[in-house]
Amino acid sequence: MRTGVATVCLSGTLREKMQACAIAGFDGIELFEQDLITSPLSPEDVRALAADLGLGLDLYQPFRDFDSVPEDLLRENLRRAEAKFRLMSRLGMDTILVCSNVATAQIDDDGLRAEQLARLARLAGEHGVKVAYEALAWGKYVNDYEHAHRLVEMVDHPNLGTCLDSFHILSRDWDTAPIEAFRPEKIFFVQVADAPRLSMDVLSWSRHHRVFPGEGQFDLAKFMAHVVRAGYSGPVSLEVFNDVFRQSDVDRTAVDAMRSLIWLEEQSARRLTVQDGGAPAAHRRRHPMELATLPRVPETTGFDFAEVKADDTAGLETLLGQLGFAFAGRHRTKDVQLWTLGQARVIINEQAPSQAEPAIAALGFDVDSPVLASARAQQLKAPVVPRTVQADEEMFQGVAAPDSTEIFLCQASPDGTAAWTHEFGEGQDAGPTSLYAVIDHVNLAQPWQHFDEAVLFYTSALALEPAPFAEVPSPTGLVRSQVMQTSDRAVRLVLNLAPIVQQGAPDGAPGRKSYQEHIAVAVDDLVAMARAAKERGLEFLPIPANYYEDLDARFSLEPDFLATLRELDLLYDRDGEGEFLHFYTATVGSVFFEVVERRGGYDGYGAANAPVRHAVQYDARQSRGVA
Amino acid sequence: MRTGVATVCLSGTLREKMQACAIAGFDGIELFEQDLITSPLSPEDVRALAADLGLGLDLYQPFRDFDSVPEDLLRENLRRAEAKFRLMSRLGMDTILVCSNVATAQIDDDGLRAEQLARLARLAGEHGVKVAYEALAWGKYVNDYEHAHRLVEMVDHPNLGTCLDSFHILSRDWDTAPIEAFRPEKIFFVQVADAPRLSMDVLSWSRHHRVFPGEGQFDLAKFMAHVVRAGYSGPVSLEVFNDVFRQSDVDRTAVDAMRSLIWLEEQSARRLTVQDGGAPAAHRRRHPMELATLPRVPETTGFDFAEVKADDTAGLETLLGQLGFAFAGRHRTKDVQLWTLGQARVIINEQAPSQAEPAIAALGFDVDSPVLASARAQQLKAPVVPRTVQADEEMFQGVAAPDSTEIFLCQASPDGTAAWTHEFGEGQDAGPTSLYAVIDHVNLAQPWQHFDEAVLFYTSALALEPAPFAEVPSPTGLVRSQVMQTSDRAVRLVLNLAPIVQQGAPDGAPGRKSYQEHIAVAVDDLVAMARAAKERGLEFLPIPANYYEDLDARFSLEPDFLATLRELDLLYDRDGEGEFLHFYTATVGSVFFEVVERRGGYDGYGAANAPVRHAVQYDARQSRGVA
Repeated sequence: MRTGVATVCLSGTLREKMQACAIAGFDGIELFEQDLITSPLSPEDVRALAADLGLGLDLYQPFRDFDSVPEDLLRENLRRAEAKFRLMSRLGMDTILVCSNVATAQIDDDGLRAEQLARLARLAGEHGVKVAYEALAWGKYVNDYEHAHRLVEMVDHPNLGTCLDSFHILSRDWDTAPIEAFRPEKIFFVQVADAPRLSMDVLSWSRHHRVFPGEGQFDLAKFMAHVVRAGYSGPVSLEVFNDVFRQSDVDRTAVDAMRSLIWLEEQSARRLTVQDGGAPAAHRRRHPMELATLPRVPETTGFDFAEVKADDTAGLETLLGQLGFAFAGRHRTKDVQLWTLGQARVIINEQAPSQAEPAIAALGFDVDSPVLASARAQQLKAPVVPRTVQADEEMFQGVAAPDSTEIFLCQASPDGTAAWTHEFGEGQDAGPTSLYAVIDHVNLAQPWQHFDEAVLFYTSALALEPAPFAEVPSPTGLVRSQVMQTSDRAVRLVLNLAPIVQQGAPDGAPGRKSYQEHIAVAVDDLVAMARAAKERGLEFLPIPANYYEDLDARFSLEPDFLATLRELDLLYDRDGEGEFLHFYTATVGSVFFEVVERRGGYDGYGAANAPVRHAVQYDARQSRGVA
Repeated sequence: MRTGVATVCLSGTLREKMQACAIAGFDGIELFEQDLITSPLSPEDVRALAADLGLGLDLYQPFRDFDSVPEDLLRENLRRAEAKFRLMSRLGMDTILVCSNVATAQIDDDGLRAEQLARLARLAGEHGVKVAYEALAWGKYVNDYEHAHRLVEMVDHPNLGTCLDSFHILSRDWDTAPIEAFRPEKIFFVQVADAPRLSMDVLSWSRHHRVFPGEGQFDLAKFMAHVVRAGYSGPVSLEVFNDVFRQSDVDRTAVDAMRSLIWLEEQSARRLTVQDGGAPAAHRRRHPMELATLPRVPETTGFDFAEVKADDTAGLETLLGQLGFAFAGRHRTKDVQLWTLGQARVIINEQAPSQAEPAIAALGFDVDSPVLASARAQQLKAPVVPRTVQADEEMFQGVAAPDSTEIFLCQASPDGTAAWTHEFGEGQDAGPTSLYAVIDHVNLAQPWQHFDEAVLFYTSALALEPAPFAEVPSPTGLVRSQVMQTSDRAVRLVLNLAPIVQQGAPDGAPGRKSYQEHIAVAVDDLVAMARAAKERGLEFLPIPANYYEDLDARFSLEPDFLATLRELDLLYDRDGEGEFLHFYTATVGSVFFEVVERRGGYDGYGAANAPVRHAVQYDARQSRGVA
């Protein structure tokens, strides 16, 4: 698959954008007109730079408001087009995107439109240019891709084809199956963009909220399968207008973009394989994406460990001990400690920079094949983590997540144990091994620029699936909360997008995470566990009395049970499937712990209680003067 | 008018919110349930705090999903309501907001609904509570304020009334005139919120994009006039769900909120006065807002001066000299210089902190009565500016705009001169006084948290009117550009909302504005002016050659004219009304200058050229390594 990306997706100057695309490994780019107009690079400079970088200049875009106009305006438009064709010749480009007319269309007549497009195609032919005509979703008369294609077929000129843009097609819910019947020589270009399902006007949706494939809710694999079956083998190029990408680091965004196409190629190939499995080989050979060879999706079966880094580890050790974790030893060769509770393993890494506050630094995931999973993540352009921080003789495979959390891919064992633990020296008695305790979920704060990137990373590399996102009120703003999980819930990861700037705390202050993160452990008798922890002196997050009054008003709880919740600062939730009990610890550095008990089929996270947590934690920070 | 605000509008803890409301001068608040539930303050504590602060606790809100349910669920809802009534008694509150049912309504029968509301009213009566029933715009069966009111009249119980929320009414475009026929004793509460006109689902619009009155596009004065004519004299309270306000400084947001109600009261009173001017006095006396006594709106007739502050002023002096400004003298007693070109006056203030880069510090506006204008701004809660920086014996009246720019209100003179200039000593010969040159507009960068606040500030204090906003692409993201202007265009102010975080430059780094701002001077012969400036060595912002090629493709310009534009780095725009020529200087500190010539009725700012400016300026910053 020839990969491409429009320069309008990225921040920076044209030179910066092109360099980032080349480094990310794109085959070509769409040159957005404004990026050229605002650039000091001459067309010849751009051509030479592209050649140096090994980047194709695949599409000049866009040319607007051409068709469906009176004759005098058409002549003016042809003059304007010819100026661009001459420019393209200097750029060494041969394909231009022409959008269906929005602003100046006056005459709704397919015959006239075809005649006008034919004149454009003939003029383009004289300049060696191919015109890719695209139906905008909000085009005045032409807003349906089949209509645009029909006009192309009416004209039937070698220099006129259509451009298929997934946004304009899927945002309108057009059926995509008719694409398969298109003649491949009439499809000049394919643009892909994903988007979250939003109910707003399609123009604003398109201009501000597109995302890369895998970061939204469009079924792009299906779309691409139709395109491939039509026989199209040209560029598949990202045209993604996104307010956040436009202001994020250009090199990262380019890599995120490339990852989305690698993933889309695999998803599309899989769709084709499944659907055409029984077809004759000759037919299958038509599919240029069938041989996509990303290492297969790992089976992610649980958390192997969570790792917290700290300079001064005393607070963490106390907290874990009070929670009932046992100190399971110190690593033979590295400054790391292992603490365990049942199958929940927490590593304290003392190799943090001086003065660094405790923070979640790494997560280990159990997968069926760490080698394949790591190879897959790396082919998805996840940066490899140097193994200096992982104190283990086992060959852990590690990559960096978009928020810099280190992700280690570990060998799953049938009994939930981890082979590497024998590398740790003597520790305390870990208590009865029959104790049920596992890492239920981990909650990571995401920088606002990398939220969509993180969704794609965990989707593509670890096959976690995004749940519908929630928004939780907090004293410093709404917190966007995105659950990523396996279908069997063996892994649950919660990505929180914290409010942009914390009051009084500059975003990204060095040495400190801007928002609290936590590790949640599931047990089967939360009340007993909380009582024991309390006896050991654990500092619980104090829950306001008002909360329990409201809880009672909502749920009519048994007085004894309510008294227990209140006594132990426990929180409670209930839905049609079951019940949820949980409590939070005080925060050490930027980390705290949660303990949960899931009763019945309860599948949530106590979302109604999250505002209470945020408010109490905010209050605590204010009191410590660290807001 | 009794003023109020819902705690959900603001950031922080309940205590912080209440303190901010008291300081801003609100009469009362709506207590949002979640703010109580998440608070360590007991109901009795809240009651005592409110008494200390002189704040009424006017509305407990909200109670959801009560009506239109089967009997068993109704009983459960009554039990839940009674728990809240008991809580309200501890809080000393007597009014609760009940929203029309969204989630659990099953039976669409007004008879049944009235019966259920009657049972709620009777129960409320037993606890001394008044129920204000409100139609949510997305209520399952009740989503129209007249419907809610009809139910209230059907029940006709003293403890049941309606709550009118401007958002739920105006977002649905319901006619507001029927409000006048409501019996005042049936209107228990009025909530006001403004909003920009957005085409998106009304729930998201309501939950994220409400703004304070005067910051959006709803006709709230008309709404309020109807409410007043109905005889309502209870609280007028802001219920504004806004993602930005939720994360902004609570004290500032509270003041912004209060300003919006002061302004709304005036606007509503004016609407009533105009409409009821001929009515008998007895009728007019019904209007509690008729006597609103803000000092009248000033007539703003132009820019008196713009002031730039700098530690090292050499760069600025050179630039102004090259532009043709004459040094008109140094102030007799202060370290400030005056530079003039025609009627355009620029003050260079040397009293800046050491190392401070040149930045726009103050603007002077000509008004017909500085004393009244200043009194008005202060009553609108604009902070008074200490006069230490204004080097003038004239008694300037100054207030601080939301972005901290100092706004001075100066006496307009019939001939465009300024009386205070005689306080400056001898300068250069200012050239022919017949020269046409005025400050055309000033472009100020706004912090993202205070953009809406700035719109209201300039609307209410200086009677500038917002034009539809534009979005301009730049290499670091989309720049939101909001023109505020007088109807005669004597004053044009452009507020730019820069992308949230500049790459590599932390937002709000001390001593440096995060974005460039500029002063634009209008002349009547731009080409001659540019040529003279070039001869004096002015460094123009260099415009890429590609720009002129595109300009020619778009406009078919005369070759000689195009050559002149290219030679002098001039930019050009044209619309149906006229033409626009302009150029930019290089940037000194965070300030640059623009010179413009408006031909014919051209009323814009060359929006199509703004991306070129942003890109070239970005490039220049990158080259200097100051991105």
